Amino acid sequence: MAIETVTSTDAFKQLVTDVTSQAGYKEPMAFGIARVDRGQKNAEKILQANFGLINWKENFGSAAVFIKALQEANCDVDFSGTEFVATINDNFVHNAMAAFAPYVAEATGDAHKNVQVIKALSNMADIGKNFRIVFLFEDANPGSVEAVYLKLYALSQSKAELRKINLNGAFGILSNVAWVGNTPYELDYLRENEIEMKLNGTYPAVDAVDKFPRFLQHVIPADNTRILEASKVRMGAQLAAGTTVMPGASYINFNAGTLGPVMVEGRISSSAIVGAGSDVGGGASILGVLSGTDGNPISIGENTLLGANSVTGLPLGDACIVDAGITILAGTKIKIAPEELAKIAEANPEAKLEYKTTFKGAELQGLNGIHFRQDSTTGEIIARRSTREVKLNVELH
Amino acid sequence: MAIETVTSTDAFKQLVTDVTSQAGYKEPMAFGIARVDRGQKNAEKILQANFGLINWKENFGSAAVFIKALQEANCDVDFSGTEFVATINDNFVHNAMAAFAPYVAEATGDAHKNVQVIKALSNMADIGKNFRIVFLFEDANPGSVEAVYLKLYALSQSKAELRKINLNGAFGILSNVAWVGNTPYELDYLRENEIEMKLNGTYPAVDAVDKFPRFLQHVIPADNTRILEASKVRMGAQLAAGTTVMPGASYINFNAGTLGPVMVEGRISSSAIVGAGSDVGGGASILGVLSGTDGNPISIGENTLLGANSVTGLPLGDACIVDAGITILAGTKIKIAPEELAKIAEANPEAKLEYKTTFKGAELQGLNGIHFRQDSTTGEIIARRSTREVKLNVELH
Amino acid sequence: MAIETVTSTDAFKQLVTDVTSQAGYKEPMAFGIARVDRGQKNAEKILQANFGLINWKENFGSAAVFIKALQEANCDVDFSGTEFVATINDNFVHNAMAAFAPYVAEATGDAHKNVQVIKALSNMADIGKNFRIVFLFEDANPGSVEAVYLKLYALSQSKAELRKINLNGAFGILSNVAWVGNTPYELDYLRENEIEMKLNGTYPAVDAVDKFPRFLQHVIPADNTRILEASKVRMGAQLAAGTTVMPGASYINFNAGTLGPVMVEGRISSSAIVGAGSDVGGGASILGVLSGTDGNPISIGENTLLGANSVTGLPLGDACIVDAGITILAGTKIKIAPEELAKIAEANPEAKLEYKTTFKGAELQGLNGIHFRQDSTTGEIIARRSTREVKLNVELH
Repeated sequence: MAIETVTSTDAFKQLVTDVTSQAGYKEPMAFGIARVDRGQKNAEKILQANFGLINWKENFGSAAVFIKALQEANCDVDFSGTEFVATINDNFVHNAMAAFAPYVAEATGDAHKNVQVIKALSNMADIGKNFRIVFLFEDANPGSVEAVYLKLYALSQSKAELRKINLNGAFGILSNVAWVGNTPYELDYLRENEIEMKLNGTYPAVDAVDKFPRFLQHVIPADNTRILEASKVRMGAQLAAGTTVMPGASYINFNAGTLGPVMVEGRISSSAIVGAGSDVGGGASILGVLSGTDGNPISIGENTLLGANSVTGLPLGDACIVDAGITILAGTKIKIAPEELAKIAEANPEAKLEYKTTFKGAELQGLNGIHFRQDSTTGEIIARRSTREVKLNVELH
Repeated sequence: MAIETVTSTDAFKQLVTDVTSQAGYKEPMAFGIARVDRGQKNAEKILQANFGLINWKENFGSAAVFIKALQEANCDVDFSGTEFVATINDNFVHNAMAAFAPYVAEATGDAHKNVQVIKALSNMADIGKNFRIVFLFEDANPGSVEAVYLKLYALSQSKAELRKINLNGAFGILSNVAWVGNTPYELDYLRENEIEMKLNGTYPAVDAVDKFPRFLQHVIPADNTRILEASKVRMGAQLAAGTTVMPGASYINFNAGTLGPVMVEGRISSSAIVGAGSDVGGGASILGVLSGTDGNPISIGENTLLGANSVTGLPLGDACIVDAGITILAGTKIKIAPEELAKIAEANPEAKLEYKTTFKGAELQGLNGIHFRQDSTTGEIIARRSTREVKLNVELH
Repeated sequence: MAIETVTSTDAFKQLVTDVTSQAGYKEPMAFGIARVDRGQKNAEKILQANFGLINWKENFGSAAVFIKALQEANCDVDFSGTEFVATINDNFVHNAMAAFAPYVAEATGDAHKNVQVIKALSNMADIGKNFRIVFLFEDANPGSVEAVYLKLYALSQSKAELRKINLNGAFGILSNVAWVGNTPYELDYLRENEIEMKLNGTYPAVDAVDKFPRFLQHVIPADNTRILEASKVRMGAQLAAGTTVMPGASYINFNAGTLGPVMVEGRISSSAIVGAGSDVGGGASILGVLSGTDGNPISIGENTLLGANSVTGLPLGDACIVDAGITILAGTKIKIAPEELAKIAEANPEAKLEYKTTFKGAELQGLNGIHFRQDSTTGEIIARRSTREVKLNVELH
C-alpha cells in the first residue's frame, strides 16, 4: 500500500529493477509532472500544463519510481496506450519521497531534478487536484493537453529536434483561451462575468487569445539569447543559444527556430529552420509549410543573409544572400550568367547543375554561396556567386 | 420622486408605454451604462468608458426605464441634442431596480442583460460618481468620450457595420493616456509623480501611450477567433468569428477588419475590410484611406490571397492572388495577355473591360479571379486569371 | 562630519562656491541619483538604474551639493576618472537636505527637481543600499550600469543629441535579464527556482529578455506623442513631440529616432534619424549601421515619405518619396530622364550632379525632392522630381 523509505542507493537501484521487470512494464520515452490550470467554468477542462521539469529519453529510474508510487497509491498505470495521464495525490508524493530518500539531501541546483520536483510537492500542505503526471510511451499523436505541452517543452528546451516530433492534432486538443499573464481563462467564463467584472473594475487585462502560450511563459532561454518581446516567440519554438529576436516584424512559430546564433528581425514560419550565423533581416519572411511552399519545409543554412523585407520560399544553403526587398519562390525564374554558374558549381561540388542561363528557384534549392538579386535596370531576378565563403566539407572532397 | 416596484410584466409594459408617450420623448438608437475612469489629476476628464453591455438599435423598453429612472432621480433628460450623457446615482439604480422587478430573478446568463447591469450596480455599497449613462439619439459626430466608446463597442462587437458609423472628431475627444493594463493614466499625473514613483519603485509598467485602448481590453472574441498579441488589434476593429491575428507584422486599426474567417499576418489599415476565407500574408499591407488610396477605402473580397510582404492599394474581388513581395497601386501599369484577359472577362461578366494589353490598377479594381505577378525575367507587373474558382451569382446570370 | 543647515540662498551660493573651488574639483557634465535593481542571486550586480531625474550639462550647484554631501558622509569623490559612482546613505541625504534647506518649501512641480529627489529620499525610513549616485566628468566609454542608463536617459529625454553620445561598450556592461513589468530578473535566478515557482504557480510572466529596458519603462513622452505598444521603442531612442509609433512592423532602436512629428509604422534602426513631417510607412525599413549601410548612418529629411514595405539604405533629403515595396540601396542603379534630372538639380542647387542617365543610389544620397519608383512595365528603378515642394534655404540662395 506504500513504498517504504529507501535507505541506500543500492536499495534504490533494486527498487527500480523490481519495478522495471514487472510484466508489461514499458519504459516511457518522456514523462513529467505538471501543475495544470483548469477551466474556471469547466474544471474538467485542462487549459495549460506547467512543467517544472520534463524528462525526454532520460531518467528512466525516476520514471520507474513514479510508476511504482502511482501503483502503490492505487492508480493503475496503463501501459497499453501510447500515453498515460493521471492526477497525482499526496499518497503518490509520499511514496515517491520514500523512494527518493537517499537523494533528498543532495537534490539542489542541477542535481536530481525529479527529486526536487517531489520535494517541492511534499512541501505543500495539500496538493489538491491540480497536479498531473504524464508518460509518453511512444511518439504518437498526442492525446491530452499534458502530452502536447510535454512535447512543446521538449522542442523549446532543445531536448527534441525540430520537425521530428509528432504533434498531429495538437490544435484540436488545446483550448482557445484568454491569456492574462501566465493564466489562461475560458472565454465563456469571461462572457458570463463580463457585466460584473466591467462594472466592478475587475475585468482582466488580456494579453492574447490563443491555443498556445508564449515561449517565455514556460522556457528560460540561454544567457546570451534575447527575446525583446514575448509575443514574438510561440511555445514550441526552438532558439539556439545566442539567438536574438527583435520586436519589429519578427515572429517564430512553434516547431520552427534556429540552430545557432541567429539575428531574427523577420518571420520564421512553422517548420522553418535557420542555421548558425545567419541573419533574418527586418521584415524578411521565410514561408511555412502552410503558406506557399507546397509542404516543403524550408531550411536555411549557416551564415546566410535574408535582406530586409525579402521573401524566401525555398530552402537555401550556407553563405547565401537574398537581397533586401526581393522574393525568391520555387517557381521564380532566375538568370545566371555562365561565369557565375561556374563559380556556383565550384561552391557546390555535389550539385548537378545543368548548363543553362535560366533556372527555376526550385532547381537552386539548398545550394551554397548564391546571391539573389534583382537587376534594377532590367527588373530581372538574377543569381550569382555570393561574396561569402562556403566552407566545404573536407572529408567528402 | 421614485418608481414604485413594478409587480408584473404587464405593469412593466404599461410603464414603458407611459414613458415613451411623453411629449418630446425620443427613442435612442443606442445607449449603455459605463464605469468610467477619471483623470488622476483632473477628475472631470473622462479617460475611458467600460461598458458591461451596450444596446444598439435594440432594447427600447430598457431605454425607457433608464430615462424614467433618471427623471425620477431629478435628472432631466435632454432629448434635443444628438446625445445625452449623465452621471447616475444610487437613486437611479433604485428606480431602475423597481421597474425591472418582474425580471430580476430570471436575469442571468444571456437573459435580460440590462437588468443584470442594474443588479450589479445595486450590489455595490455606493456607486459613487464613476458610472455614467449615455444615449445616442442619432448617429452624429460623437460629443463625449462615452459616445465614442459606445460606437467603438458597436463596431467591435459587430453590432454596427464597419465604415457605417460617424466617428468624426473622435481623436479630438479622446485623451492621450498611458495604459497600464486596463487602467489609463494622465501623462501629467505621471510627470508630477515621476520622482517619487521612480525612487519608491512604484512607477507603473506602461503598456502603451495612445488615445484608443486595445480591442481585448473591452471585447471578448468568438471561441474560434485568435489574437496572438493584444496590441495588434485596436478598439473599434471588427473581427468576424474564425479570424486569426498573428503577432508578426500584423495590425488591424479601428473601423477596419474582417467579414469572415481570415488569417491575418499583415496590416489592415483603418477603413479596410477583408472578406471570408481570405489570407493577409506575413507583412502584407492593405493601404488605408490616409495612406495612398486617395480616400478610396479598400475592400478585399472572399478567398483572396495577399502574399507575404505584398502591398495592395486598390480594392480586390474574390479569388484573387497578389504574389508575395509585389505592390499593386491604383496607378500601377499592369500587362494582361489577350487570352488571360478573356478568362478574366469570363470571371467578371458584369465588368466592362476594354480590349487592350496594359491596364492601370484602378481599372481592375474590385474584379474577381485575378492573379497579380511580377515577371522575374522582365520586371513587368502582369495579371492573369488566378487558379482560384470564382463563384458567380447564379441568380444574376 | 555634516553639512549644517543652510539658512539663506546667499549662504547656499557660498556653499557651492566653497565646494567648487576645492583643489581638484571637476564639474560633472552629467549626474543623477538612481534607485537600482540588484541581482536576486548576485546583489553586487546592478541590473537596472531608475532615475527620477537626470542632470545633463545643467544644475551645477546641485552637483556641488551632492559632492559635498558625499564628502561629509565619508565618501571620497574621485575626480580623476571619467565617471564616479557610489552608493548613497542616510547621512548623505541628511547633508543634502541641510544644504537645500532654503529651497525645500518651494520644491514642487517643475521647481528644484534635485531638491525633490532629496525630499523623496528623506521621506523614506531607511534608504538601504539601493540608491546610487553617478557623475560623468566626460563623455567617455561608460564604465558602469548607472553611467549607461544616465546616457540612455539623456537620449530618450532629448537632453542629448542622437549619435552624439559615447555608448561604446554598453552591451558589455548591461546584463541580459528577464523583464517582468519594470523588474529585471537574473536568468540564473529563474533557473534555480524554476521547479518551485512552476509548481507553486508563482513563475513570473516575462515580457522580454534583453539587456535594454523599453523606453516607456523610464520615459514619459510628450502629450501628443503616441506609442501604441511599449516593446516597439527601446530605451535610448528619441521621439520628438508629435511622433506616433504604430504597433504593426514598427521598431525604433536605441540611439535612433525622430526630430519632429513623424508617423512611424516601420523600422528605424540604430543610428537612423527621421526629420519632422516625414512618414515611415507600414513595414518600411531604414537600414542601420549594422545592416547594410556600410557604417554610414542614415538621416531622412523632413516631409519625406517611405512607402509601405520599402527599404531605404541611403540618406535622403527633404520632400522625397520612396514608393511602396521598392528598395533603394547605395549600390542600386537608378535611371533618371534628362528633364527630371534638370528638375532635381533645380531642387538641389548645391549638389553637383553629373549629366548622365544612370546613377548609383549613393550618388543621390541626401538630395531633396526625389521620387524613387519602379517602372512596372520594365522593372527599372527610376527617379524623378517628387511632387512635394522643397523649401530652399533663402539665405543661401
